[in-house]
Amino acid sequence: MHQSNTITIRMRRWNGWGDDTFDKTLPATARAFLESRLGRGQVLPDESLANACAQVPKSRLEARTGFDRSAEARLRHAHGQSFADWAALRHGHVGPFPDAVACPQTHDETRAVLDAARKAGAVVIPYGGGTSVVGHLKVVDDGRPVVSVDMSRNARLLDLDPHDRIARIGAGAAGPVVEAQLRAHGFVLGHYPQSFDYSTLGGWVVTRSAGQQSRRYGRIENLLHSARLVCPRTDFDAGGQVASSAGPDLRELVLGSEGRLGIVTEAAVHISPVAERESFHAVFFTDWPAALAAARAITQAGLPVSMLRVSNEEETDTQLRIAGHESAIAWLRRYLGVRGIGNRPAMMMIGATGSRRQTHRLRADTLALTRRAGGVHVGTAMGRIWAKNRFAGAYLRNGLWDAGFAVDTMETAVPWSQASATMSAMQQAAHVALHAFDERALAFAHLSHVYGAGCSIYMTVVWRRGADYATDMARWRALKGAVSRAIVTCGGTISHQHGVGVDHAPYLADEKGEAGIGLIRAALAELDPQGMMNPHKLIAKQA
Amino acid sequence: MHQSNTITIRMRRWNGWGDDTFDKTLPATARAFLESRLGRGQVLPDESLANACAQVPKSRLEARTGFDRSAEARLRHAHGQSFADWAALRHGHVGPFPDAVACPQTHDETRAVLDAARKAGAVVIPYGGGTSVVGHLKVVDDGRPVVSVDMSRNARLLDLDPHDRIARIGAGAAGPVVEAQLRAHGFVLGHYPQSFDYSTLGGWVVTRSAGQQSRRYGRIENLLHSARLVCPRTDFDAGGQVASSAGPDLRELVLGSEGRLGIVTEAAVHISPVAERESFHAVFFTDWPAALAAARAITQAGLPVSMLRVSNEEETDTQLRIAGHESAIAWLRRYLGVRGIGNRPAMMMIGATGSRRQTHRLRADTLALTRRAGGVHVGTAMGRIWAKNRFAGAYLRNGLWDAGFAVDTMETAVPWSQASATMSAMQQAAHVALHAFDERALAFAHLSHVYGAGCSIYMTVVWRRGADYATDMARWRALKGAVSRAIVTCGGTISHQHGVGVDHAPYLADEKGEAGIGLIRAALAELDPQGMMNPHKLIAKQA
Repeated sequence: MHQSNTITIRMRRWNGWGDDTFDKTLPATARAFLESRLGRGQVLPDESLANACAQVPKSRLEARTGFDRSAEARLRHAHGQSFADWAALRHGHVGPFPDAVACPQTHDETRAVLDAARKAGAVVIPYGGGTSVVGHLKVVDDGRPVVSVDMSRNARLLDLDPHDRIARIGAGAAGPVVEAQLRAHGFVLGHYPQSFDYSTLGGWVVTRSAGQQSRRYGRIENLLHSARLVCPRTDFDAGGQVASSAGPDLRELVLGSEGRLGIVTEAAVHISPVAERESFHAVFFTDWPAALAAARAITQAGLPVSMLRVSNEEETDTQLRIAGHESAIAWLRRYLGVRGIGNRPAMMMIGATGSRRQTHRLRADTLALTRRAGGVHVGTAMGRIWAKNRFAGAYLRNGLWDAGFAVDTMETAVPWSQASATMSAMQQAAHVALHAFDERALAFAHLSHVYGAGCSIYMTVVWRRGADYATDMARWRALKGAVSRAIVTCGGTISHQHGVGVDHAPYLADEKGEAGIGLIRAALAELDPQGMMNPHKLIAKQA
Repeated sequence: MHQSNTITIRMRRWNGWGDDTFDKTLPATARAFLESRLGRGQVLPDESLANACAQVPKSRLEARTGFDRSAEARLRHAHGQSFADWAALRHGHVGPFPDAVACPQTHDETRAVLDAARKAGAVVIPYGGGTSVVGHLKVVDDGRPVVSVDMSRNARLLDLDPHDRIARIGAGAAGPVVEAQLRAHGFVLGHYPQSFDYSTLGGWVVTRSAGQQSRRYGRIENLLHSARLVCPRTDFDAGGQVASSAGPDLRELVLGSEGRLGIVTEAAVHISPVAERESFHAVFFTDWPAALAAARAITQAGLPVSMLRVSNEEETDTQLRIAGHESAIAWLRRYLGVRGIGNRPAMMMIGATGSRRQTHRLRADTLALTRRAGGVHVGTAMGRIWAKNRFAGAYLRNGLWDAGFAVDTMETAVPWSQASATMSAMQQAAHVALHAFDERALAFAHLSHVYGAGCSIYMTVVWRRGADYATDMARWRALKGAVSRAIVTCGGTISHQHGVGVDHAPYLADEKGEAGIGLIRAALAELDPQGMMNPHKLIAKQA
């Protein structure tokens, strides 16, 4: 590989999502709809960057080449994108902070940073794109100094084998950097989480990320061929075999390790040729149960859709109301009425990706199935809008917040037979939790990842912000706790695609069991005997 | 689930493969061919069962309900099906032996057996179908008494959910017992290793088995939903989530654990409806490189074949020569000659499984591709013979041995770009190793499992037996060592489908690295602090 210059992508907005030159204000129709459901938004002034920087104390680490101890760098690496992160930044409760930020460009430079941190008695928080929504980046002060290791400069395509379809890439590469470098060779990775613009290959690996088209390309655990790590005790290469029966698959310990085993510096991944065609079809069903049954039928028939999403009635209605294309939506509602779909439909979105022949067949087979299941196909126009905005939805959070509304998403995966009950329990928990504050919740959900045995359930909740930090946090903690308990009670995983971090750590033992937690602890202790890697994440306390 | 009676399957032949009422003697043409290549076979009398039993010493364990301390039970549980196991049994070098055999029928009974063994200071060797070819069942005498835990009575279908397509089954169920119970409900698991008749669900899980139709149904790691284990420290439930980003996937530590973490007592697996149609098509290519290229093209095009095998020229020739259908084979050779395929073709076998429409399309798409690649389709007659004998090939080993020939198989998986070089290196290593004894090897190979990035390479070696135990073992050790080193040098996994056991343990560190071995050891020590579970397997010594 030639020494190409790669773009380094970092989020410009210090206290919200994304590029601060791009604003997505709430459309007037959307604001009116939310106010009708939730009441008038609570708008408060935000903390300023200058004031936030002024809160950053003196670093506990000595000056060292490559350690950025500036207040702004340390502030910008102190948070991710969880609700708690947002509330802290917007209200000016911004600490604690890392004591230094390092940006190593290679595996060897990362080794040197980790060794320096160890010698200084510091703990290390690996930092990819800063997009965690569950507190992976939170600085938990236990007396030790903290180094944030920002991987964004380690983003180069290192090797690409078109014959074996494997590419090795610096783990700090964000989604667009991964795809741009592969596309130059005619390939894609095909991993598209909503955080795609900023989240990184290494971050995807250690949080077991799932992209929007996981049905075609696989979750990150299916895409990962091998990972190279810098761990406190030693370097560690995991995987690298095409398929093997030689003992436990150690990639699967790296996947989901959330920075606690070490830092992933490079990853080899399975790549695919750029698809000839791609389209996204919208199909409306009378209600969620009908759409869910069709989704299960499509999945279990093995139809090779690249994506399958089903919005429940509340999500479908909300999307139609806040979309802003009023006349087009009115026409759509009339058409659905004529076709016998009622007022509260559920929308399915079907991805068809592949060669001309494959997508033609898939379209025919899948739409025949949805038609038999009572679905009404309305073409690809809505799908084009979805695809255009597939990563822009995260910007809506800025607009909601500025209008005085908070938003969070909570998600799980369950067997097909538990999907409806789990979705209802999650929504109900959200309503009850906010009702205790005399507030209302707008809670809607979709399934967006399908498997032979079941699907994901992804719920969005919008509610009014409170008058201060304590109120905002109290409402959110009640909401998050109630929904998490509902998920666990229904037997769902505490996270299908966001990871554990600090927010889900209290629920992990329900899923892994005490023996399982013991196994994870034993693995962490083996490669990180001093517990210097991202402590308090994944497993809360080394009790 | 009602309390159905399940059949318990155990191998009847004490010193060879399978049912002793079924013999597969070597056809005369096959014997003549082998003699022409290797010289006259070395026929020796076998040790008798009575004499072998007489070698079994007094048990070191006290009598206990459920502990069978009889000589024959202990002899029958002292070995698997590796070359070393065969040589020991046939030559009468049959020890050491387990001190007792237990056959628990349930999870709780297995817990009780393990607790009793621990109290007695004994080690435990879990025993499924006794089909290991790499020494998983070998008794390594380190002074502690040994209990063999035979799981074959724990074979019931415990639960089946047709909606979520998950079945929970006792881990001692052998292939036919698994499939018969599922088929009664219209489902299959679809896991068909050659050892299918005897190998068990639990054995498949702990050795990361791959079935002949892994391309359709997945390897056992793809089929496993959850596993329940009895471990020395505690019980352990692994997995059970549809898909999850909540930390490391602990199923992947159970998969490949080879009895060292504990005993798998129950497993929940993903099941599929019985397929409407199935056929296996034979296509001949001029040579191995042409067939290999076509196999890669089929796989990377994503054509949903249920199986793809390519025999190299030597294997194709050998199969045609020993098949015994001389006139049909002569006709086939003439036909291939007319179609421009030369004298040393390579045969591809393609599995088409699914609905009528799916198999029709697959056949059309795949055969169009093979035709463009120069392949000549000869229909499904050879495929029908293959399917009929798919599990009977193991019996040929009895016939070869009786005719004075030894046989072993060695296998790996590598990226497509390394397939030919690895295959050649393995064959060459076999020839060189036996040449040192002034003996010749018949070595041929196929690929039988395909992945986006590469394929398996499976080599069969036939050579003449020696005049005594020491000679047989010396030849085999030289052969096994040379081929294993060739695999490691080529970067292949030390096993794609047989596991590690004792025979591959010396090569595991090349693949996992020291850090990886450390992680595996840490996991074992966590659930089995005294090292009582199947010691010396997977990782040879706790150095």
